[in-house]
Amino acid sequence: MNTLWYGGDYNPEQWPREVWDDDVRLMQKAGVTVATVGVFSWAKLEPEDGRFEFEWLDDILGRLHAAGIRIDLATATASPPPWLSLAHPDILPVTAEGVTLAVGSRQQYSPSSATYRRYADRLVRAIAERYGSHPGLEAWHVNNELACHVPHDYSDESAAAFRVWLEARYGSIEALNAAWGTSFWSQGYGSFEEVMPPRAMPTFPNPTQLLDFDRFSSDAWLGVYRAEAAILREVAPGVPITTNFMGFFKHADYWAFAREMDFVSDDHYVDPADPAAPAYAAMTRDLMRSLGGGAPWILMEQSTSAVNWRTRNAAKPAGMHRLLSLQSVARGADGIMQFQWRQSLAGAEKFHSGMLPHAGENTRVFRETVELGAELASLSPVVGSRLRADAAIVFDWDSWWALEQDATPAQLSYVATVFRWYRALWRRGILVDFVHPSGDFSPYRLLVAPSAVVLPGTARHSLAAYVEGGGHLVMGYQSGILDENLHVIPDGYLGELRDVLGIRIEEFAPPAAPSLSGGDVPALSIVGLGGGPAHEWGEIVDAVSAEVLARFEGGMLDGHPAITRNAHGEGVGWYVATAPDDLVAVVEAVIAPVFPNLPAAPPDDVEIVERGGVRFVLNHSELEVEVDGVRVAPRGARVTGTGTRG
Amino acid sequence: MNTLWYGGDYNPEQWPREVWDDDVRLMQKAGVTVATVGVFSWAKLEPEDGRFEFEWLDDILGRLHAAGIRIDLATATASPPPWLSLAHPDILPVTAEGVTLAVGSRQQYSPSSATYRRYADRLVRAIAERYGSHPGLEAWHVNNELACHVPHDYSDESAAAFRVWLEARYGSIEALNAAWGTSFWSQGYGSFEEVMPPRAMPTFPNPTQLLDFDRFSSDAWLGVYRAEAAILREVAPGVPITTNFMGFFKHADYWAFAREMDFVSDDHYVDPADPAAPAYAAMTRDLMRSLGGGAPWILMEQSTSAVNWRTRNAAKPAGMHRLLSLQSVARGADGIMQFQWRQSLAGAEKFHSGMLPHAGENTRVFRETVELGAELASLSPVVGSRLRADAAIVFDWDSWWALEQDATPAQLSYVATVFRWYRALWRRGILVDFVHPSGDFSPYRLLVAPSAVVLPGTARHSLAAYVEGGGHLVMGYQSGILDENLHVIPDGYLGELRDVLGIRIEEFAPPAAPSLSGGDVPALSIVGLGGGPAHEWGEIVDAVSAEVLARFEGGMLDGHPAITRNAHGEGVGWYVATAPDDLVAVVEAVIAPVFPNLPAAPPDDVEIVERGGVRFVLNHSELEVEVDGVRVAPRGARVTGTGTRG
Amino acid sequence: MNTLWYGGDYNPEQWPREVWDDDVRLMQKAGVTVATVGVFSWAKLEPEDGRFEFEWLDDILGRLHAAGIRIDLATATASPPPWLSLAHPDILPVTAEGVTLAVGSRQQYSPSSATYRRYADRLVRAIAERYGSHPGLEAWHVNNELACHVPHDYSDESAAAFRVWLEARYGSIEALNAAWGTSFWSQGYGSFEEVMPPRAMPTFPNPTQLLDFDRFSSDAWLGVYRAEAAILREVAPGVPITTNFMGFFKHADYWAFAREMDFVSDDHYVDPADPAAPAYAAMTRDLMRSLGGGAPWILMEQSTSAVNWRTRNAAKPAGMHRLLSLQSVARGADGIMQFQWRQSLAGAEKFHSGMLPHAGENTRVFRETVELGAELASLSPVVGSRLRADAAIVFDWDSWWALEQDATPAQLSYVATVFRWYRALWRRGILVDFVHPSGDFSPYRLLVAPSAVVLPGTARHSLAAYVEGGGHLVMGYQSGILDENLHVIPDGYLGELRDVLGIRIEEFAPPAAPSLSGGDVPALSIVGLGGGPAHEWGEIVDAVSAEVLARFEGGMLDGHPAITRNAHGEGVGWYVATAPDDLVAVVEAVIAPVFPNLPAAPPDDVEIVERGGVRFVLNHSELEVEVDGVRVAPRGARVTGTGTRG
Repeated sequence: MNTLWYGGDYNPEQWPREVWDDDVRLMQKAGVTVATVGVFSWAKLEPEDGRFEFEWLDDILGRLHAAGIRIDLATATASPPPWLSLAHPDILPVTAEGVTLAVGSRQQYSPSSATYRRYADRLVRAIAERYGSHPGLEAWHVNNELACHVPHDYSDESAAAFRVWLEARYGSIEALNAAWGTSFWSQGYGSFEEVMPPRAMPTFPNPTQLLDFDRFSSDAWLGVYRAEAAILREVAPGVPITTNFMGFFKHADYWAFAREMDFVSDDHYVDPADPAAPAYAAMTRDLMRSLGGGAPWILMEQSTSAVNWRTRNAAKPAGMHRLLSLQSVARGADGIMQFQWRQSLAGAEKFHSGMLPHAGENTRVFRETVELGAELASLSPVVGSRLRADAAIVFDWDSWWALEQDATPAQLSYVATVFRWYRALWRRGILVDFVHPSGDFSPYRLLVAPSAVVLPGTARHSLAAYVEGGGHLVMGYQSGILDENLHVIPDGYLGELRDVLGIRIEEFAPPAAPSLSGGDVPALSIVGLGGGPAHEWGEIVDAVSAEVLARFEGGMLDGHPAITRNAHGEGVGWYVATAPDDLVAVVEAVIAPVFPNLPAAPPDDVEIVERGGVRFVLNHSELEVEVDGVRVAPRGARVTGTGTRG
Repeated sequence: MNTLWYGGDYNPEQWPREVWDDDVRLMQKAGVTVATVGVFSWAKLEPEDGRFEFEWLDDILGRLHAAGIRIDLATATASPPPWLSLAHPDILPVTAEGVTLAVGSRQQYSPSSATYRRYADRLVRAIAERYGSHPGLEAWHVNNELACHVPHDYSDESAAAFRVWLEARYGSIEALNAAWGTSFWSQGYGSFEEVMPPRAMPTFPNPTQLLDFDRFSSDAWLGVYRAEAAILREVAPGVPITTNFMGFFKHADYWAFAREMDFVSDDHYVDPADPAAPAYAAMTRDLMRSLGGGAPWILMEQSTSAVNWRTRNAAKPAGMHRLLSLQSVARGADGIMQFQWRQSLAGAEKFHSGMLPHAGENTRVFRETVELGAELASLSPVVGSRLRADAAIVFDWDSWWALEQDATPAQLSYVATVFRWYRALWRRGILVDFVHPSGDFSPYRLLVAPSAVVLPGTARHSLAAYVEGGGHLVMGYQSGILDENLHVIPDGYLGELRDVLGIRIEEFAPPAAPSLSGGDVPALSIVGLGGGPAHEWGEIVDAVSAEVLARFEGGMLDGHPAITRNAHGEGVGWYVATAPDDLVAVVEAVIAPVFPNLPAAPPDDVEIVERGGVRFVLNHSELEVEVDGVRVAPRGARVTGTGTRG
Repeated sequence: MNTLWYGGDYNPEQWPREVWDDDVRLMQKAGVTVATVGVFSWAKLEPEDGRFEFEWLDDILGRLHAAGIRIDLATATASPPPWLSLAHPDILPVTAEGVTLAVGSRQQYSPSSATYRRYADRLVRAIAERYGSHPGLEAWHVNNELACHVPHDYSDESAAAFRVWLEARYGSIEALNAAWGTSFWSQGYGSFEEVMPPRAMPTFPNPTQLLDFDRFSSDAWLGVYRAEAAILREVAPGVPITTNFMGFFKHADYWAFAREMDFVSDDHYVDPADPAAPAYAAMTRDLMRSLGGGAPWILMEQSTSAVNWRTRNAAKPAGMHRLLSLQSVARGADGIMQFQWRQSLAGAEKFHSGMLPHAGENTRVFRETVELGAELASLSPVVGSRLRADAAIVFDWDSWWALEQDATPAQLSYVATVFRWYRALWRRGILVDFVHPSGDFSPYRLLVAPSAVVLPGTARHSLAAYVEGGGHLVMGYQSGILDENLHVIPDGYLGELRDVLGIRIEEFAPPAAPSLSGGDVPALSIVGLGGGPAHEWGEIVDAVSAEVLARFEGGMLDGHPAITRNAHGEGVGWYVATAPDDLVAVVEAVIAPVFPNLPAAPPDDVEIVERGGVRFVLNHSELEVEVDGVRVAPRGARVTGTGTRG
């Protein structure tokens, strides 16, 4: 398409046909260019085993196409109909405690179920055959939010699949025993038949068993995607395929998924009540762009106003929906889609806002829907263009899964740690990519690795080479502690990065709340660069060759290094052993030699991004600001430049 | 009876017979008029399958009768004996997660169990035949606190009963699909056989499935009552029948229960530590009176001092027990009963206070027991008299169940919302009834409908007619949003009440805590009537014809209406879109034209109620107050007037 | 041994043999005298059913012995290998909700499993036969931390064992019914076959059923110990046997365990973040000494720095590890062992600190390991010596279990209550023993009984006799309320202790948070002895003959006694009805006549203990202090005297 996608999930099966005409009319009024159809239509398309009813779908797709609205057609596999789950209860997922989950919501199937696979394949093939050459077809939308509600399935069928996966990974039970460290706690396995998923246990499970089950579960869901995509490619070659991501979602390794997708798409639901939401949303946009290797992506779902699944669901104030849409485009999106077109009157999401609310056309939400459609139409020149970042954050799911296990030095949040760094860079106006530890670091002048706790030898080696070749690397605490099997890297952690950073780590000493008397986790204090309060982490760092730029003050860490800098090869290795309040000051020191001509930081909560020749000045604050000598209203945006097609 | 019931649960089976003589002597000393016997006697009455032992019960009933103490005789079905549950494990209830609940506490049966029903029926019939014409028999007490511990049973037998219930409600599976909105999330059912109770699921269940399971479960428990009552009526016609309610209890629709009971009775355990307890207790008394259509009711259980089931159990300070007993009489009770007569020495309730405490006669609790008996004896003139309220609060279980579902705009508490309004009216000295949305509004000059979120068309119509005919209606937020199937009422919610209130509702905007960074839910602010801080709820209201009496100030709702008033027909429709701190000010504005001659508000925490010619001035505060020119001591009461038999 | 044990758990199976040489070398450098070997070696020793591999263990035991390091040899039964649990799933434990716990962590067996017993016995016998006369063998170490992760097993096999246990305890079902008070809630049993463990139930279980299941479960684990110990004694008579305790561990009655052990050993993991940790640790040391009847005990596990199982794991500041080790020796330990020698690189405890950390020899932790070894070597003179306490705290598991049941007057923590008293005595410099209610009180001039809620008649009698004979007894609230079956002691509680204390208790009145509006539990206030704020508990005490030394002020308890003192016989009975902030003042008043020549209290957080002629001055504070005219550094110790062998 030469224009941005604009539209939303459209569920005509929830409405009588007399409403369909009205839908098409209002979509046109709103400038809708694409509709996602069929995500939850299985029960309508196959009301009984093997009996398909496509007439209604033919009808609505025809209407949309006639109105010039392109179709993102779903494979309809996201929620099996009740007859299927009840005829074949083996498809139902099972929890770690052995509870079989029941019919009545959605995603009530195991990704490892052969029965589910057989039925889903038949449906996908039928849809592909019927609509693969439909003139309105823009893309295939595989399933929906894979893994969202059933991140792990502990059924016997999954257990068998897990064993197959393990045998493929390790080859022999001896290799598994070595990788899992089963000499600990008498866990040595005699054969793969003995291995189980990490169901409820008396105490802490084997960490590598847990990690492998995380990897397996992600792969099992990827298998669902892969199976459907293979049929679509076979039956209807050439139609681009996606499945909708869920931003920073822990239970699916999106690096692996993205490799098999024709374009990345994402569902992102900002919390309007959260002051940190604009930066967090920006981080998510940058992740999506990075997952696709820099290619444009689609914002596949967002809400026009409130969602319905938080404890309390704030509405979006005027302007916020536009700002976040423009932010997405600025950061690489070629489409702005909403869940959903017309707000439902029944079901579990009826209180989720839509483009066309319960109260109808004469509402501020529908007026904003129309205005946004017009504005996005004017942004067609950016379609296809790419952004270029000079900085990147090292990010991967192994570290996420490992860092948040129990029985670790402290319960830390991986994404919170990453976000702390992202936000400081964002405030400073620096565009960042995300990069996998095994990825290509060469485009970047600066790499930040916050709590990259799992770093296999190859990754450590390439990070070292990166610095030797002139790169600037900032490592945060809890990075380079474990290898890919979660075995500790001994003798001071970090392995080959010890020389790069000029340090060794002697011992962890995170601040902790007193367990007998309770209370909050105390703050730390550092002096020097970024001086002032610091949080969450402390440790005993031995500065071997590094320069010490900040030190802990007080407590058992008094005088120990908190921030170090080490010239190494052609580059520089930084180490930050805590979470200072003033992380922006640290960022300033890091970037000064890297980006010597960087403009001054934008005003608070203002972001400035250029894409395809268009400059986006987005003021997320509730104050009027001045940028480039021009005033931008509170929650306002200024979009300038003509754009160049990428 | 011509006197008030006074007494308590009496469990002679816990004591050797030598204690029984002492019990009767002390009951007489205390002025006990009624004893509830046999509630947990099944295992004693039927120690083996089919072998009944009634001699001990003959004995104690004879003693009580000889002493002039009337008998409220239980059907003894509340806790099946171990032999029954173990011989027939199919009677045991099952949780949503599939856990079968075990023997060892009480209520370990499914209300849908045919086996339970068969055994319970045999027992009830045996009791009815033996004691139906006992000269001491005052009333039948069916089972005990139905549904209290097993509000829902998810067993296969309940699943089958649920399907029968659904088929009776909907007639066809198509009708069920339409009502449940199963087009959403691919939930269309092909037959009733496919439908299941809402067992543990991957995510939010279908809301109407949930609501129907709430309704079914309430009906299943009502079925337990109904089955026992039918036997009692058949065998011993003419003896009044009750079962003991639990105040504002979510899991049984007491409107439906009360229709089948000869009189309402209630168990109410005030929290002595709670400053709001007097108002909350008053609200509960008024609900009981209303459930019985205004007829006198029995306070069937309360504690003389501490209970044993809170995390920490406060004792009642001197005077509180008397005050709350008098409050009940003032608000329509014809009996003041306690759990229990003699405090147990063993079992799970041994730390629950009794009329006769562990420490015996020489205690402040037993002294208060004796004093209260004497005072209640003097109040015989009020027996049978009725109160008349000019105001009512609309209350029903559908709204309760629906409002507190997940996947709604905000997690709200129905009873907390109702209580906020009740308390403001109580402070102002206004007696209120509760009324079902399908009830008769004609007795009332003022109706308040707080979060009446479910309003079927008939109810909306009759509320509209009420205002047209001159009634004053105050609707709170989240009223009139859904129909009886939980389908949204479109185009601004409220349906025909839009004209009555002169508004439409465009969008919900409840205040919310930031999800990334946590924190408290922020307060709102309103200006105008009831101006100052407000809480819990905000929304975008469009004042079509209504006068705006207060507006939100600040934030995204700045300037939007918060309180509106609309003259409509002969009456007035108010709408209150938030929870102002100063709700009393709003109440004052509402009632000024309705009750122009209302006396000034009583002092804080003082309530004044008249019943049957007796005036009760109850000072719940810890300060001495002056009412009618007479001083009333802290936690004291003044009861005046001779009373007239109703 | 003539020297203190010093060393740790040693798990050579986690390391290649080339590391073993290094281990022995570094152990010698550190002054290690004992290594615990084989705790989690089952899978290595018996990799397949019936095939034993001992060669590797022969090897390492030989190396240790050659190096002069004694061996604490484990029976290796703590974690059955996967092949066993999977071939015999009947050994797996089951939760109260019916979840069978899976393989993958440790302790995945039911203590009642006959299959487990059979396999464990065979292994223990094989180990005993092979190593029973090994010249390096110092002691047998049975299993590991019995009951830690599976305090209760609810499987059918446990249910059967529970019934056998009950039949042995009660003889007849009538006796059980009487003891359990089954007349309450219709729980009468017809036969033992009907009795079940307290699996998940609708509401509060029968309290005595719960208590008996606690007792049974403790006995079941004791049975595991007993079975292994019997084989060891049979095959290798004369070798001392222990199993490692876990300090104040709720789920095993260590009084019963200790009776069957040759010496007590304990695992204790201080929370370095907790200011109360030194006093709490001291209390634990005193319990261990008391459990062994005053005999020396072994600190079997502690960490050199951080653990890995708290939410956040603080490191130990410099000096703390030494101080706590010396504290243990001062309070009766003849050995200071650590978990573990060499920090693991894999598995669920890899982040648990060791004597030899990940970072190797050049670390502060290993330097402290070496220094501590040297210092402990110099303390050999204390080995075998005993301490003598003049005061004791009454402590037992029945009271612990009963006090913390639900459906009690308030949720209290038994150990927190005990610790409040212990800490006040510790601050005052008074050494205390712990004593069972049925124990020998004659050595003590002062007894404190905090929340000794269960006191059988014999215990009440012996406490009364103790006071009559001149003892000073301080009883805290919630003491003497229940007999051994949890039946209330009627007529004012306390039984024969009413005369001793000169009081009766009329009614409990603990402060409580308001349940409707939430909030904190309010503080109480007392005037008189220990005047000021008080917490947690209040009640109505009737001072019959006792002198009232403090009274409650305000609220419903205003003016009621809070602290009483009663001269009785030759002694004195105190009663303290609340938890005053200033408990030290109360202690001062209590001890003045008992210990008239007691030295002044030591400085805050300093403890002074003498053992075997050695005086330990331990300064846990972060300030320098002066004791005996000599300055002691922050977190420093002064150890003086030559010592005399006990």
